[in-house]
Amino acid sequence: MNKEELFKEFEKYKKMGLHIDMTRGKPSSEQLDLSMPLLDALSSKSNLTSKEGLDCRNYGCLTGLKECKELFASILDVSPENIIVYGNSSLNIMYECLSDAFLYGVCGSTPWSKLKKVKWLCPVPGYDRHFAMCEHLGIEMINVPMGDDGPDMDLVEELVKDPDVKGIWCVPKYSNPTGITYSDEVVRRFARLKPVAKDFRIYWDNAYALHDLYDDGDKLLEIFSETKKYNNEDLIYEFTSTSKISFPGAGVAALAVSSNNFKDIQSHLGYKTIGYDKINQLRHVNYYKDFNGVKRVAQLQASILRPKFKLIEDVLEKELKGIANWTKPNGGYFISLFVPGQAKEIIEKCKECGVTLTASGCAYPYHKDNDNSHIRIAPSYLSMEELKTAIVILCLSVKLLK
Amino acid sequence: MNKEELFKEFEKYKKMGLHIDMTRGKPSSEQLDLSMPLLDALSSKSNLTSKEGLDCRNYGCLTGLKECKELFASILDVSPENIIVYGNSSLNIMYECLSDAFLYGVCGSTPWSKLKKVKWLCPVPGYDRHFAMCEHLGIEMINVPMGDDGPDMDLVEELVKDPDVKGIWCVPKYSNPTGITYSDEVVRRFARLKPVAKDFRIYWDNAYALHDLYDDGDKLLEIFSETKKYNNEDLIYEFTSTSKISFPGAGVAALAVSSNNFKDIQSHLGYKTIGYDKINQLRHVNYYKDFNGVKRVAQLQASILRPKFKLIEDVLEKELKGIANWTKPNGGYFISLFVPGQAKEIIEKCKECGVTLTASGCAYPYHKDNDNSHIRIAPSYLSMEELKTAIVILCLSVKLLK
Repeated sequence: MNKEELFKEFEKYKKMGLHIDMTRGKPSSEQLDLSMPLLDALSSKSNLTSKEGLDCRNYGCLTGLKECKELFASILDVSPENIIVYGNSSLNIMYECLSDAFLYGVCGSTPWSKLKKVKWLCPVPGYDRHFAMCEHLGIEMINVPMGDDGPDMDLVEELVKDPDVKGIWCVPKYSNPTGITYSDEVVRRFARLKPVAKDFRIYWDNAYALHDLYDDGDKLLEIFSETKKYNNEDLIYEFTSTSKISFPGAGVAALAVSSNNFKDIQSHLGYKTIGYDKINQLRHVNYYKDFNGVKRVAQLQASILRPKFKLIEDVLEKELKGIANWTKPNGGYFISLFVPGQAKEIIEKCKECGVTLTASGCAYPYHKDNDNSHIRIAPSYLSMEELKTAIVILCLSVKLLK
Repeated sequence: MNKEELFKEFEKYKKMGLHIDMTRGKPSSEQLDLSMPLLDALSSKSNLTSKEGLDCRNYGCLTGLKECKELFASILDVSPENIIVYGNSSLNIMYECLSDAFLYGVCGSTPWSKLKKVKWLCPVPGYDRHFAMCEHLGIEMINVPMGDDGPDMDLVEELVKDPDVKGIWCVPKYSNPTGITYSDEVVRRFARLKPVAKDFRIYWDNAYALHDLYDDGDKLLEIFSETKKYNNEDLIYEFTSTSKISFPGAGVAALAVSSNNFKDIQSHLGYKTIGYDKINQLRHVNYYKDFNGVKRVAQLQASILRPKFKLIEDVLEKELKGIANWTKPNGGYFISLFVPGQAKEIIEKCKECGVTLTASGCAYPYHKDNDNSHIRIAPSYLSMEELKTAIVILCLSVKLLK
């Protein structure tokens, strides 16, 4: 199509009065339907006594049910003793860890609220809610470019020489939003990282541990077994949840940490709550039974997501080959499209047709995409039809602005 | 009985090898059984769409489901717009409020972590977990004596002239642990309190709002309608939960606040989580339907608790009349026994027979009961038989040490 034809085509869509919202990576109703039997996993007829003899209906059990720890341990390939099971949100666990660090310090360090400055490493593009949390807490964020195999580790190793640098966000598998998985070498370099700040922690947000689109998904090297080789286990806080396997917002979230970190975190936990929702923990354990049960549902999720990713990749391949670059993830929730110097304008152009994409810069600290290049595509929530329309309009917008 | 007979009786119990734990105010299994139908309130056949059209299975809805706000509003006799529905723990909401105050300040005030000192008023005896939270956060606690009608308000009004004093714990109905309810006059004096610190808040922990033992329970004056008269609504954070109505640890908790406080709290909430467990909120709404539904279960709870309170009061009346004083609450979870100068020794004496009471001083900041007088009796968890044995042993111990 020449520019005039592109323009005509665009005008056609504009007149359709569309309202397509692709801003967030929410599961679709069809995906949520998969987990409806979870609601039958406990009833008034159920035995609500835990493996260890606890009445799950009553108070107590601060760090979570043993059987739920075992389930998460199998998902993360760590030991159940290293797991704390929380409530419904892994984002909330991350916040708790940061908030503890500000109020009490980390394993005996000076509380961060008493420090002049706290800096944080942010691989970019990254997860908007991670960056927003840092910004809200007044943490100074430092960008680290992402490659195909993870963050620029030369730069990370250089930056952790600064004692003000206290942590880094990592989504090591199917990274939000590029969808890449950290290479073994990158994981190993993280595992042997020796930051100057003793209270530096790697926030290892393994949100997409089981979110492969294909049977032969990416393999992420398990980081704790690597840190052990360097006596460096205290470096890692690993987060995960069932949010995108069972129900977002009504799932169960967990933290995996070394025994030192476990003790440190537990020393604050008992002042915050008497315990998290053990009935929901038990509900998930009863429903999934074991790792294979979780895996089975994750595969069903993938069967719904796969055609959506494929559709997008096909349209991008057909329309934008040689014009723009994009990532081709094997799992996770997002695809990144790179259109240097034009992201903002293209997103605005889409909006003219009623297609809302996440605001430009959303995947960067302080919403600043200096290259004005990144567009986050979220395939999950829309129907195939809406998705196709949205991506066709996106491609049209890219080409119109070329 | 003379001392020798008392001693013989005591030795008899000692030989029985009892293990009776009366340390915590947990509901009994029988009470928990009442709420088993709650687990059937949602199933795979249920409609999980909220009143406002939200899919409760998905992300979102930061401040809670409208219908769940309405339910809590009816319990607290406030407007639904003033309610934020959280997760499973009101204690956790209190912690969040304190943690926000330390990290961000209150409605624009200096963050408390930047202050040299933060002081807090603690009516005594009070709830151990309130005091432990303050101590953990490094807040300096100041005792305020409790009377039969609430805290000593002359003292409260005097102490809030200190700008370092930032708040007060209140359990206004069936106060933990004395069981008294604040008089209308005390509520009114709280409502018109004018602390020097603009970021002073009354932490109004209405944990026992519906926990009457008798049909004509104590009436607590609704505080927000009182504060309105003095343009003083921002003074109150009111907390409640279904913990002792449905399931402790798997219920729903809520906060009632003025619109200014709502905005302030919400401005931080979105950085902590995408939302709380809406499915559990919906489960509770589906089960209770409305205020009468909650009230009905609360009355069933009372029918189990009432004989336990009566049993204790009968034994105390029979054994300790003229020897010690105790409270006679119309609701809540505790009875306070006062044995000036001997609480610690009596608790130790009971322990000799295998009866564990909450440690002496537990109901006081820093665990310091300066009068060594207070013993907290928790009737709920034990069976009638165990309870009788425990109280008889307690009375024996009191008399032996007289």
